[in-house]
Amino acid sequence: MIFLTRRERFSAAHRMFRTDWSDEENKNVFGKCSNPNWHGHNYVLWVTIKGEPSPEQGFVMNINILKQIILEKVIDKIDHKNINLEVEFMQGRLATTENLAVAIWNELEPSVKLAGAMLHCIKIEETENNSIEYYG
Amino acid sequence: MIFLTRRERFSAAHRMFRTDWSDEENKNVFGKCSNPNWHGHNYVLWVTIKGEPSPEQGFVMNINILKQIILEKVIDKIDHKNINLEVEFMQGRLATTENLAVAIWNELEPSVKLAGAMLHCIKIEETENNSIEYYG
Amino acid sequence: MIFLTRRERFSAAHRMFRTDWSDEENKNVFGKCSNPNWHGHNYVLWVTIKGEPSPEQGFVMNINILKQIILEKVIDKIDHKNINLEVEFMQGRLATTENLAVAIWNELEPSVKLAGAMLHCIKIEETENNSIEYYG
Amino acid sequence: MIFLTRRERFSAAHRMFRTDWSDEENKNVFGKCSNPNWHGHNYVLWVTIKGEPSPEQGFVMNINILKQIILEKVIDKIDHKNINLEVEFMQGRLATTENLAVAIWNELEPSVKLAGAMLHCIKIEETENNSIEYYG
Amino acid sequence: MIFLTRRERFSAAHRMFRTDWSDEENKNVFGKCSNPNWHGHNYVLWVTIKGEPSPEQGFVMNINILKQIILEKVIDKIDHKNINLEVEFMQGRLATTENLAVAIWNELEPSVKLAGAMLHCIKIEETENNSIEYYG
Amino acid sequence: MIFLTRRERFSAAHRMFRTDWSDEENKNVFGKCSNPNWHGHNYVLWVTIKGEPSPEQGFVMNINILKQIILEKVIDKIDHKNINLEVEFMQGRLATTENLAVAIWNELEPSVKLAGAMLHCIKIEETENNSIEYYG
Repeated sequence: MIFLTRRERFSAAHRMFRTDWSDEENKNVFGKCSNPNWHGHNYVLWVTIKGEPSPEQGFVMNINILKQIILEKVIDKIDHKNINLEVEFMQGRLATTENLAVAIWNELEPSVKLAGAMLHCIKIEETENNSIEYYG
Repeated sequence: MIFLTRRERFSAAHRMFRTDWSDEENKNVFGKCSNPNWHGHNYVLWVTIKGEPSPEQGFVMNINILKQIILEKVIDKIDHKNINLEVEFMQGRLATTENLAVAIWNELEPSVKLAGAMLHCIKIEETENNSIEYYG
Repeated sequence: MIFLTRRERFSAAHRMFRTDWSDEENKNVFGKCSNPNWHGHNYVLWVTIKGEPSPEQGFVMNINILKQIILEKVIDKIDHKNINLEVEFMQGRLATTENLAVAIWNELEPSVKLAGAMLHCIKIEETENNSIEYYG
Repeated sequence: MIFLTRRERFSAAHRMFRTDWSDEENKNVFGKCSNPNWHGHNYVLWVTIKGEPSPEQGFVMNINILKQIILEKVIDKIDHKNINLEVEFMQGRLATTENLAVAIWNELEPSVKLAGAMLHCIKIEETENNSIEYYG
Repeated sequence: MIFLTRRERFSAAHRMFRTDWSDEENKNVFGKCSNPNWHGHNYVLWVTIKGEPSPEQGFVMNINILKQIILEKVIDKIDHKNINLEVEFMQGRLATTENLAVAIWNELEPSVKLAGAMLHCIKIEETENNSIEYYG
Repeated sequence: MIFLTRRERFSAAHRMFRTDWSDEENKNVFGKCSNPNWHGHNYVLWVTIKGEPSPEQGFVMNINILKQIILEKVIDKIDHKNINLEVEFMQGRLATTENLAVAIWNELEPSVKLAGAMLHCIKIEETENNSIEYYG
């Protein structure tokens, strides 16, 4: 079993808040991350898949195919967007990195499977000090 | 002459656009960076000052003092904020990194001078591929 | 299950040596790392916890709480200190990064548990080429 | 159980191609990576071993011994070399990073065992966006 | 005056050698870098231009235009290529990073000028420890 | 004129203090950096030289020669040492990074000149947030 990881990046705005809470309640729980005028990040995304290398090509998966899947299913939908307002796969969820990792897993999993590999891990770095991993 | 550099970081939302242009005109010039719903970055800021090391302390400037100046004059005003809507020193300016570098220079220059050193350079990295430097 | 990682840093002095060995014996085993006049590092620490995101807040744990635990239990006790002489939780242990990782695990584990999450991994980078991971 | 990781680097030329395919077939599958005149990378290699720290020395393995094993068994044979033409342990294999990770595992495993530890993971970064892990 | 820097990357094979020297003479001067079977690197390129920000757009130059110039004039010609054999702008020159920096300056300078800015610096990192800067 | 930079690293202990001040006075000025039991850092050193590339070899200076000079004149004397107690070229100076940069310049300048190049810059990073540059 071999693990292959592709790194991609996206820049997006977001805000941590519950629509059923007042701005004050949101501020108490989420602090400056609940700023009503938004803030943003350069998110770094690592997608890890696993599988046996194909004897014919020596690859778990052609990394250009993996890259295209990530661009089409994730980056094109979230880069330079507002995560709360514009990203369909995050609608109805709190815009935490935890929820983002799960949602990106769900976006990618069927396409990776179709391409003959297994999704193993979604890792997202929100800042150089904070990151999240999700293994399905 | 010695050059001393302090690195700080801030996360903010912004949008590239002119209020006197239509959304379409803005999109033609600024592309996805003019998204009306904002996007954001983890900005990295390097502030370089210059001077002679004090014979008594061996410092150009105590770096904790430089850090406090940057936090008070810049980071507290811009971190987790919307650069277009909430950052006073960027009002009336296009929210480009070029203009941000000049505005941060102007914010810091008097305090650095008061502390006995000379401001030398403001460097801002917007993404790992794009950065700006300004030398006054 | 989601994994959340917080990075913190500390700078400390240390020396690899056994008090029951001569300086020469220490030098034979630990080389330049046993220098009696100490040396030091910028250690990088990654603390990973795991848990289910709370449905109410979307977090495994509020990362500011995790940060406060790490600062109070580890960083305040070790940053700008001598690991062999001044760090209580390393007394009676060889000042290797292996032992440091285990000791930091023990420092953090009860507080992370109290905060409702599970400690998953302590990773310490001593230099850009050498690092240690401990999973309890 | 403690995990110890050593990072090393090597620069090498390679080409993705099957000798039983035409240049055109190779180009269709491997794209620009099959360039007949070669291309190259700065590969980064992380070798992770695991074991109990020795009570006497506090180490899983003296990292200088691990470094010497990696230099002798891998770096000296591959650094500033052509992977396809000159690296004995890659003969008869497609020069993918997947195959490289498996081959390096096989090169290192007996020596790490002899030194009293267990090989845990070979991670190779081919570019800052693409990496491979192999756990045996 | 504002300085704007764009980072791009390319992976290429090369060999340090003079065609009018024997392999032995080349090895004496260039060491392992003269390996007749080539080796390669992940080169990192920083292109810095300077100018006044346009009052209308707030940019020294639209960074997407700068990116397109670098891709067309440099990256498309050198990425996944053999610098000695295939890169037209390096023909007749020793494949050192010094000569590469000068050649890339010459490739970019007319297009940057046409776009209304001034080329300021070409920086190339060959490995994480070795880099070259050229200011024209 | 071409600028060539070599990066090297060293790990050392130090303490900021004046022998003619009390521990309390030292603490007031230098804070936790004056800890009598020392602390330490992984220092990163960039040495930049300048010159014309030799027409014969295409180098400003063979970087292996520059590396040897830095290892012999600086790294061997300071790595895994106590800067205050054991580094001859820092005796009688406050162990600030400013003074370290000047002292390293003085150590390297004659040898770089002898090798036919000019020393241009000494840059030292003490932590990822703090660095010093000196241009002679």
